[in-house]
Amino acid sequence: MSKSNTILWLSAHPEPSSLNGSLRRDAIEHLRRTGHKVLESDLYAMGFDPVVRARDGGRASGAERERFRVSTDTRDAFISGVQPPEIIAEQTKLKQADALVVQFPLWWYGMPAILKGWFDRVFVSGFAFGTDPDTGRRLRFEQGPFVGKRVLVATTLGDRPHAIGPRGKSGELHELLFGLLHGTFAYTGMSVLPPWALPSADRITDYERARDDLRRRLDGLFTDAPIPYRPQFTGDYTPEWELQPHVRPGEHGVRVHTKQ
Amino acid sequence: MSKSNTILWLSAHPEPSSLNGSLRRDAIEHLRRTGHKVLESDLYAMGFDPVVRARDGGRASGAERERFRVSTDTRDAFISGVQPPEIIAEQTKLKQADALVVQFPLWWYGMPAILKGWFDRVFVSGFAFGTDPDTGRRLRFEQGPFVGKRVLVATTLGDRPHAIGPRGKSGELHELLFGLLHGTFAYTGMSVLPPWALPSADRITDYERARDDLRRRLDGLFTDAPIPYRPQFTGDYTPEWELQPHVRPGEHGVRVHTKQ
Repeated sequence: MSKSNTILWLSAHPEPSSLNGSLRRDAIEHLRRTGHKVLESDLYAMGFDPVVRARDGGRASGAERERFRVSTDTRDAFISGVQPPEIIAEQTKLKQADALVVQFPLWWYGMPAILKGWFDRVFVSGFAFGTDPDTGRRLRFEQGPFVGKRVLVATTLGDRPHAIGPRGKSGELHELLFGLLHGTFAYTGMSVLPPWALPSADRITDYERARDDLRRRLDGLFTDAPIPYRPQFTGDYTPEWELQPHVRPGEHGVRVHTKQ
Repeated sequence: MSKSNTILWLSAHPEPSSLNGSLRRDAIEHLRRTGHKVLESDLYAMGFDPVVRARDGGRASGAERERFRVSTDTRDAFISGVQPPEIIAEQTKLKQADALVVQFPLWWYGMPAILKGWFDRVFVSGFAFGTDPDTGRRLRFEQGPFVGKRVLVATTLGDRPHAIGPRGKSGELHELLFGLLHGTFAYTGMSVLPPWALPSADRITDYERARDDLRRRLDGLFTDAPIPYRPQFTGDYTPEWELQPHVRPGEHGVRVHTKQ
């Protein structure tokens, strides 16, 4: 049937018997049944610590009184192979994955802290951005380290459907999640699928319908068209990271970074 | 001179001797010198745990195998006064404050996890949103619990200035932070000032200039005009949380929620 791929399922909900927990189990089962290999990072179950600290710079606890330079020290630790083992484990899973699914309940219009911190700690310079330690190449957007990987956000939220629509008060979903979809996923080179969202999640009466809807999106994980974010190095942008005046002249805001 | 107010300074950087640490100390000193009372929540120094868990629902550890219903249980714990003491302490500080300053380095185009989790854990239903436990009143936007409080974001980032401008690739700053500025601060009733941002923060050559620029913004904390986000209950929105068709007809995206 479909080609077998490796998928990393990254999720963040404190309660296994929640709606998120059920969707997670059913979706992973579906992916495995359709021939894929699934790696799991269930952050609450793992007891993942999301807080960047000096130990991410490879410091022994006795050395923690030295100044911790977040970006530089975590990069050096990555290059020297002295990152905490739980971070190396996550980086290894991501390297093996052809696609990443990031599942979370939308809390205060963003990711739960335990998930935000996964990016803070795992996506260090040299691995996810900055320059390539070997080649010196700038790692971002179409030159990003994760080119070839696909990513799908699957989120549940209490608000009703219209609230995240084009004129919804909670913020149109693509724009609301721009820092994640574009600033994190596209920045690191991934092909970003339109997010799957389940509104009114506290009042779901038809679980099977939600589950089947997510399954359909998973069936398109490797075939659906990604969001057409603009590449950085093909002339659309100035060296100052600003959209060239001739591209969508007179327009502004995060939407200008998507091709129409 | 200026009226004396109470300000809560909420910040999140792992290194006291960093640029963020220096700005924090100088800014707090400036506020105190100009007659204000400053309360501090320096999350790294406090060892704040940002992860919502069953203990936020008032569970004893022996009861953790019961199902944890995040929103309901944390609301019940708030109403019953059985929240963890560190959460009650933060809520008390915020209640005392006339203004909140939220200072952080922009990591992956968002807050560091330790700060995101402050909102996840402290802003529970009944305190920050949902319905008022006493009156049943809907707590949001112009009926929010924090009406009368002002809030200023102060953030540092590695990108250059144009990158967060109107056509900047990293995302126009107000739109990039919409989930925080509108979805969290305006949602809970605060008056939200335009964020202060220091781009190219890794290459600052003139610290005094940055410090003085932030001071000027702090001098306007109680007088600068807030972002004119639309109120929810005065006719601009449908009951489904969508902007009425006659308001900015044909337009869409997060910007429509700001009055022109």
